[in-house]
Amino acid sequence: MGNTFGHLFRITTFGESHGGGVGVVIDGCPPQIDLSEQEIQFELDRRRPGQSRITTPRKETDTCEIVSGLFQGQTLGTPITILVRNKDTRPQDYSEMAQVYRPSHADATYDAKYGIRNWQGGGRSSARETIGRVAAGAIAKKILQQAAGVEVIGYVKRIKDLEAEIDPNQVTLDQVEANMVRCPNSEAAERMIELIDQTRRDANSIGGVVECVARQVPKGLGMPVFDKLEAELAKAVMSLPACKGFEIGSGFAGTLLTGLEHNDEFYTDDQGRIRTVTNRSGGVQGGISNGENIVLRAAFKPTATIGKAQKTVNQAGEATTLAAKGRHDPCVLPRAVPMVEAMVALVLCDHLLRNHAQCQLLTE
Amino acid sequence: MGNTFGHLFRITTFGESHGGGVGVVIDGCPPQIDLSEQEIQFELDRRRPGQSRITTPRKETDTCEIVSGLFQGQTLGTPITILVRNKDTRPQDYSEMAQVYRPSHADATYDAKYGIRNWQGGGRSSARETIGRVAAGAIAKKILQQAAGVEVIGYVKRIKDLEAEIDPNQVTLDQVEANMVRCPNSEAAERMIELIDQTRRDANSIGGVVECVARQVPKGLGMPVFDKLEAELAKAVMSLPACKGFEIGSGFAGTLLTGLEHNDEFYTDDQGRIRTVTNRSGGVQGGISNGENIVLRAAFKPTATIGKAQKTVNQAGEATTLAAKGRHDPCVLPRAVPMVEAMVALVLCDHLLRNHAQCQLLTE
Amino acid sequence: MGNTFGHLFRITTFGESHGGGVGVVIDGCPPQIDLSEQEIQFELDRRRPGQSRITTPRKETDTCEIVSGLFQGQTLGTPITILVRNKDTRPQDYSEMAQVYRPSHADATYDAKYGIRNWQGGGRSSARETIGRVAAGAIAKKILQQAAGVEVIGYVKRIKDLEAEIDPNQVTLDQVEANMVRCPNSEAAERMIELIDQTRRDANSIGGVVECVARQVPKGLGMPVFDKLEAELAKAVMSLPACKGFEIGSGFAGTLLTGLEHNDEFYTDDQGRIRTVTNRSGGVQGGISNGENIVLRAAFKPTATIGKAQKTVNQAGEATTLAAKGRHDPCVLPRAVPMVEAMVALVLCDHLLRNHAQCQLLTE
Amino acid sequence: MGNTFGHLFRITTFGESHGGGVGVVIDGCPPQIDLSEQEIQFELDRRRPGQSRITTPRKETDTCEIVSGLFQGQTLGTPITILVRNKDTRPQDYSEMAQVYRPSHADATYDAKYGIRNWQGGGRSSARETIGRVAAGAIAKKILQQAAGVEVIGYVKRIKDLEAEIDPNQVTLDQVEANMVRCPNSEAAERMIELIDQTRRDANSIGGVVECVARQVPKGLGMPVFDKLEAELAKAVMSLPACKGFEIGSGFAGTLLTGLEHNDEFYTDDQGRIRTVTNRSGGVQGGISNGENIVLRAAFKPTATIGKAQKTVNQAGEATTLAAKGRHDPCVLPRAVPMVEAMVALVLCDHLLRNHAQCQLLTE
Repeated sequence: MGNTFGHLFRITTFGESHGGGVGVVIDGCPPQIDLSEQEIQFELDRRRPGQSRITTPRKETDTCEIVSGLFQGQTLGTPITILVRNKDTRPQDYSEMAQVYRPSHADATYDAKYGIRNWQGGGRSSARETIGRVAAGAIAKKILQQAAGVEVIGYVKRIKDLEAEIDPNQVTLDQVEANMVRCPNSEAAERMIELIDQTRRDANSIGGVVECVARQVPKGLGMPVFDKLEAELAKAVMSLPACKGFEIGSGFAGTLLTGLEHNDEFYTDDQGRIRTVTNRSGGVQGGISNGENIVLRAAFKPTATIGKAQKTVNQAGEATTLAAKGRHDPCVLPRAVPMVEAMVALVLCDHLLRNHAQCQLLTE
Repeated sequence: MGNTFGHLFRITTFGESHGGGVGVVIDGCPPQIDLSEQEIQFELDRRRPGQSRITTPRKETDTCEIVSGLFQGQTLGTPITILVRNKDTRPQDYSEMAQVYRPSHADATYDAKYGIRNWQGGGRSSARETIGRVAAGAIAKKILQQAAGVEVIGYVKRIKDLEAEIDPNQVTLDQVEANMVRCPNSEAAERMIELIDQTRRDANSIGGVVECVARQVPKGLGMPVFDKLEAELAKAVMSLPACKGFEIGSGFAGTLLTGLEHNDEFYTDDQGRIRTVTNRSGGVQGGISNGENIVLRAAFKPTATIGKAQKTVNQAGEATTLAAKGRHDPCVLPRAVPMVEAMVALVLCDHLLRNHAQCQLLTE
Repeated sequence: MGNTFGHLFRITTFGESHGGGVGVVIDGCPPQIDLSEQEIQFELDRRRPGQSRITTPRKETDTCEIVSGLFQGQTLGTPITILVRNKDTRPQDYSEMAQVYRPSHADATYDAKYGIRNWQGGGRSSARETIGRVAAGAIAKKILQQAAGVEVIGYVKRIKDLEAEIDPNQVTLDQVEANMVRCPNSEAAERMIELIDQTRRDANSIGGVVECVARQVPKGLGMPVFDKLEAELAKAVMSLPACKGFEIGSGFAGTLLTGLEHNDEFYTDDQGRIRTVTNRSGGVQGGISNGENIVLRAAFKPTATIGKAQKTVNQAGEATTLAAKGRHDPCVLPRAVPMVEAMVALVLCDHLLRNHAQCQLLTE
Repeated sequence: MGNTFGHLFRITTFGESHGGGVGVVIDGCPPQIDLSEQEIQFELDRRRPGQSRITTPRKETDTCEIVSGLFQGQTLGTPITILVRNKDTRPQDYSEMAQVYRPSHADATYDAKYGIRNWQGGGRSSARETIGRVAAGAIAKKILQQAAGVEVIGYVKRIKDLEAEIDPNQVTLDQVEANMVRCPNSEAAERMIELIDQTRRDANSIGGVVECVARQVPKGLGMPVFDKLEAELAKAVMSLPACKGFEIGSGFAGTLLTGLEHNDEFYTDDQGRIRTVTNRSGGVQGGISNGENIVLRAAFKPTATIGKAQKTVNQAGEATTLAAKGRHDPCVLPRAVPMVEAMVALVLCDHLLRNHAQCQLLTE
């Protein structure tokens, strides 16, 4: 029961990296929305392996099929099921891992919890599971766009210690997609790509930070006290593979300021809307969106599976070493960008519906 | 529907800072646990205002009453309701805020969302709401202790730029409670207290970082993929007032390492248990606890309400300035410690029950 | 975690019949609704013991306090907590039941499940628990009325074998409240009251059937496939103490007809609305309201606790007999009427919000 | 969000009768359970159309594929997805229904709610949706059997006015499966089959009552107050297509008895277990199983879709008549038996896990 996310726009993902396939069931989608497999495929292609030389060479087209919930090109309001078959699986690459635990991977904890594990790849802990999230996120984005003009854009902010200057208020999807590392600062992107290339050659891995902005978010989204918008976003993003940290607005750096320095003063803009001069709050105050851009960051650790030899143990607890075979990303960040966007969109779409229900029933 | 947290050990908090009272209903608590109001009061006293000169001078004893769920000193398995009456309220201190929005506070967003707001204090966005969490957390801690010997200890790691060296593997509750700032490094604590004193005198505020460790956590807690332990912890902690960032294990700093540097190598200890040499994972791998200490950090921004004058607007959108009256914490960190502990305990207790249900039904 | 009901208009009830009190937390209530304790008290008075000579003589005023969620007479959108203190408790009446199980009561199953039980009355299994439901139902009714003009009216349809002719399309609250048995057919009511009087004198008990109609329910409420409106109503009503059966529309009797006889033919009325000529569907088709009156019936068994001696066992399993002391209803039906209404209103209100969220976000 | 059922053993069904397929995702299944497609197929074959001359002649093999959650013949503890493709679809049979509403069918309400409907068959309101339930129920049954020896057996108790004598304490699956109407009283079965044959020839339809017994259910299942076992069972069963009534134990008939007649007296049996002499409670007291056989009944109305001409309207509200084409069941009862069993098994399995979590964590 940990495979479902969202209250009203609710998704359930399923599938292992090796086996019949992976996918998602989306329950609660509004009816009569135009939808095609092509739209979903666009986002899946941003996530899929083998999309560039700096991602894993596993060759998967990740072609999706909408199995249910659609009729004559429109959503029915019933569950939308999206299925992607697993194709390019090489279980033999993983035969050693049937016995030997990869350091910092989920192998050992899955065994400890379930007493069984699909060792022919990452199983359920594989990033392949995120296909369902990204597919559902494509629909969430569409609803957000239609209902309120919201746009959600993620990008690589930092690879290891290479940090890029990017203005979240101005960045565009085209800029993000302009290079294979998804850093909309071409000069920084170049250096990042170089570093990832070098890392891959070293059979090592690196991590970094993805930043994501949501613009045109209506005021009023978020449900105090536990389902504050920042709390929901934190859970959403921290549930992605390899994510070890989350912050919104000023985040950890904001703790170095005084209240006087940190507070976002109010003013009224030309259209008579109450706005904030600065946005250290990151678009959320008291758990509720304030209409400013939502800006958040997620820390992704270096990929656990690496080709270099490391000390470990096998299932019997005997000491051994492992230099992983298989095909892995030297850096998950470029592919993590659409994942983060998807999770942010899912939270916002869910809260758009939730707010509509509670706060706009009697006032319309 | 955002006021409920947890699946099996499920709490619902209620109440505004000014009004009848605040409290919590706990549903799903195992039966036959010895419980008294004294045990809960111990944790509430760590949270309450006026406990020391560096917290808000609002005088509340926060005396709790267990209204239901207890019989002859034991839990019944039925909902436990804990109620704390509001006593020392001075609505007149807030009369200005009925009209004027405090910068970076929830005043404006509550108005935008609900079209109404209890302006006699923070209302539902007040830290007073966390009384219910801390009360429930006291019970969660007890269950964790009884079922598995788990201990959850939080402490102030940093105030503004004053960071303390603390060993999460060794720190004790006594050390934490030894000083009023709850930093178990007495030398650092002294400087922190001095800084908070100065800040209060300046009518300003500061933030910082709380670190929390959970020790003796059994292997196997956490439910991939959305309810990964780190995701649940992130949501729990980020739902606390003023929290802007969360990280587990190596967190953001871990992104500066390579995989080879970052991975936690496995070994088998004297008792035959599979362990990790290092703990950059922070006790969680693939969303599941691995038996190592869970170590996490939360960033708290400087308190929004300050006595210094700031530019803002009133409900009509007219420009004005506000120098807040009322009694506020110059730094929430000392009181945030029991809140963070409570949220961590609630997540662990919920997942202890969840894991017991799914993974220990047929194997016992 | 079985003490919460509803998805968007979500209530959590708490409390035992003997102890601090009983009540409810309502989460998800729309903001800015005028609300007073008087309105809630009106419904509680219809439910309270001692209201007439045919109910239990336990003297409880059931005076409610709104502890949270209200400000200047309006709902805040935050959790509304309603508390009723227990007053007229006589635990000594129950001392025998600490050891001896009442036949067909929850004493033995609570002991089997929890290993502990508040034996000073019915504990959590007491009908006193329904105070929280009825209080929350009062608010649900108000929202339904404001949003869509819905009215929910229950009444006693049958006591034992005394069945009354009542037209659900015409019945009014005044007619229901015109007599103490809540049967809006005065001739039948008289005979019912006589039968209950006789039963009380016999130290025995009787049951019957409550019918409930909801009128002006908008089309479109209900969420296939598991949360069909009839399924949600069935759960709601069957969760009331002593309820053993539920049916909607033609119910069990409808199984005696052929499809041709049973189907509700469509026509278009003067206002151009698609209607059905008959209403054997009871206002719901395929799990979704069709705009016709929702008509349902609930079977309540005779009260388990009776004064006549019955064979039973004690906690040790030893055979004994029990003639219950304490003050009990010879027939729960008159007091069950507001309970059924409350549960029906809670379901309809929740689905009003749910439908508004999914189906009216993009179409407005 | 109405397509998910269960808290810990949680299923989400998806799919329309015409389109890619139907199926289910099961989340929360314990790991390491032996499972094969054959086991699931056994139950699906009991549900599938075309299984006998008294069911719809639609020819579907309903062959299932386990897409995820299984590894080397065992459950992984991750979501189990079961997919059945739609094969024998004849949308042309339904072309008239694109415009014309079938009386008492879900056509009109789906249109009213969603503004769109897959008119090529019943869409989501088709009984075909129950494939996912039956598939999941097969796994639930297995867990119940393994954990506690529970067996769940449903059968046809009545067709129209033909009621069969059947002893729920003795009935076996073999007896149920011995004839095509699934009535384990061969003499009654013969007459029922004859009546259904006649009804089909008349282009009409009939309904009836399914009874279901669950034996060896452990004491203690059920979660007061809203998730009482009878309430959960009521919802589960009432969510099946065409179900209009539910009762447990003595049900509606029990309301004709006095308390003295109705109460189940306790005794202690040879093994020292506290038992009841009679079982009018139907195995549940106060919402919690008491160890006696759970016995419940469900009323299924006559199939709405019939070949005989009826008055109706089209989408424009214009009066017309409809004599349905397509292939439909003259009586859903024989195929409803495995559906009822599945829903009962799903509830019991979920509550087995829930009870294990809350009440057996600290007591083992």
